[in-house]
Amino acid sequence: MSLIYAIDIAGTFVFTISGALAASDKKHHHDIFSVFFTGFITAIGGGTIRDVTLGAYPVAWISDINYLLAVFAGVFFTLIFRRYIIRLSRTLSLFDTIGMAIYVVLGVQKSIAFEVNLLAAVILGMISGIFGGVIRDTLLNEIPLIFRKEMYATPCLLGSALFVVLHLLHVEEQLNFILSVLFIFAFRLLATKYSWSLPRLNFRE
Amino acid sequence: MSLIYAIDIAGTFVFTISGALAASDKKHHHDIFSVFFTGFITAIGGGTIRDVTLGAYPVAWISDINYLLAVFAGVFFTLIFRRYIIRLSRTLSLFDTIGMAIYVVLGVQKSIAFEVNLLAAVILGMISGIFGGVIRDTLLNEIPLIFRKEMYATPCLLGSALFVVLHLLHVEEQLNFILSVLFIFAFRLLATKYSWSLPRLNFRE
Amino acid sequence: MSLIYAIDIAGTFVFTISGALAASDKKHHHDIFSVFFTGFITAIGGGTIRDVTLGAYPVAWISDINYLLAVFAGVFFTLIFRRYIIRLSRTLSLFDTIGMAIYVVLGVQKSIAFEVNLLAAVILGMISGIFGGVIRDTLLNEIPLIFRKEMYATPCLLGSALFVVLHLLHVEEQLNFILSVLFIFAFRLLATKYSWSLPRLNFRE
Repeated sequence: MSLIYAIDIAGTFVFTISGALAASDKKHHHDIFSVFFTGFITAIGGGTIRDVTLGAYPVAWISDINYLLAVFAGVFFTLIFRRYIIRLSRTLSLFDTIGMAIYVVLGVQKSIAFEVNLLAAVILGMISGIFGGVIRDTLLNEIPLIFRKEMYATPCLLGSALFVVLHLLHVEEQLNFILSVLFIFAFRLLATKYSWSLPRLNFRE
Repeated sequence: MSLIYAIDIAGTFVFTISGALAASDKKHHHDIFSVFFTGFITAIGGGTIRDVTLGAYPVAWISDINYLLAVFAGVFFTLIFRRYIIRLSRTLSLFDTIGMAIYVVLGVQKSIAFEVNLLAAVILGMISGIFGGVIRDTLLNEIPLIFRKEMYATPCLLGSALFVVLHLLHVEEQLNFILSVLFIFAFRLLATKYSWSLPRLNFRE
Repeated sequence: MSLIYAIDIAGTFVFTISGALAASDKKHHHDIFSVFFTGFITAIGGGTIRDVTLGAYPVAWISDINYLLAVFAGVFFTLIFRRYIIRLSRTLSLFDTIGMAIYVVLGVQKSIAFEVNLLAAVILGMISGIFGGVIRDTLLNEIPLIFRKEMYATPCLLGSALFVVLHLLHVEEQLNFILSVLFIFAFRLLATKYSWSLPRLNFRE
């Protein structure tokens, strides 16, 4: 359990960096405040929406200061290494994918613990992983990545569903955790590599 | 009461379809995921914002799986009939208006039951009806309909106020429910037919 | 304490007016509904996000009708004086700055009372002051002011941090309140007058 906590905090650190960097791609002006704010929203947005929807108080970053310390560490890291960090973007994107996979599985796990119905748990798992980025993009007046990038949210939704199915099959919790994270990670990696996409829908006759 | 529950679930089904279709109008690319996500947000957004603002836990779709089953049914309906559904758009828009009217009145009723002040109840009723669509439009980077379409939110606000007034006059609850829903439905229909609009405001001398 | 309450209600009145006016700048069409809705969101958005994140139920405007009465008074004031109010915009902007400073300090104070970690309190203080405007701008499909206007959110963040620091130093609460409000007010005034800005960041080598 304390390994999962460590991973959660590390995920917050990495999410902050990738969130702040995603904002820096855009034509917006960037100062310390906007790096902080976009990193913060990306890192804590999804979990906050999940906890508020569940009524799971206190929200994680409100009660445990380590989440915000990880955010501040991520902001400083971004500021200090900003000229070199883009070169590292492939590495970062890998970490980001791992971080998102972990957020999803932690989210579905917490939702199940709150005894929500299992379809809701699947959706709340996905929301935990993607909604921070959705809020960031929306505030920056961009169409969220989930509507633009092929196979961004779908692996999260499927991985969240996988965790629920394995949970129903009484697969041991830690094993389930690892399998579901690996599934999301591998799915996104393969989807990117082989340009998988969902079929576009035609609404005309 | 179980009739109202049935209507609520049916409203969720119709709202999901009209939400997904509203998204399909736009120039965005559409796959199964975006149909699901825009339908889901439209159908459950307003009630979720209301419940979270009230602290009315558990939120309806979290505890009762029927809401999400209605969403999934709406998504499948949209996918299967997508080539013919636009022909049905007048019928759907009628259902959508009924659904919205019911959401508003269910929302104000629930808010009164939570003993909020009555102005807050009026506003939370309106929010229940319109905010799902507002969130969807905002995520899709569009100006929400409530700021573009004449007489979209106003009938909801007035109908919500009517319910509170009749409640204060001790009108029997079920009668009040029916009268307020009919008021919103008729107002929106007439407003569309006769192009009613609020006066535009001039902020210059 | 009742002075602070009076200031809080007065702040809601002024925030509603400045919120509705900020919307009227834009090229959007304006009717009574949009003046009401943008004013309402600006005035109550930040505090609502704070309370919902804290789980501080009931949310202020839900239990105490005076907040909504102040919003309605602000809306009527805007409607009646709309042709002259732009001439008063410098005076209003002064009141707006005071209102925002008070919202921030009330927000950090309430968060501390909920025994959150102190970094979270600083951030929730800032959110109380700026998030109503952020939501309004986002709904209107504009980049929020906090990303466009130099030194808009930063004084709020610093003033919120100042309150926490003085609180840790056991400075008497009312004195701390006044000092922190004055700090934010003076900082924003000076920043505007002397065009202070944070350094822009370069993410290229």
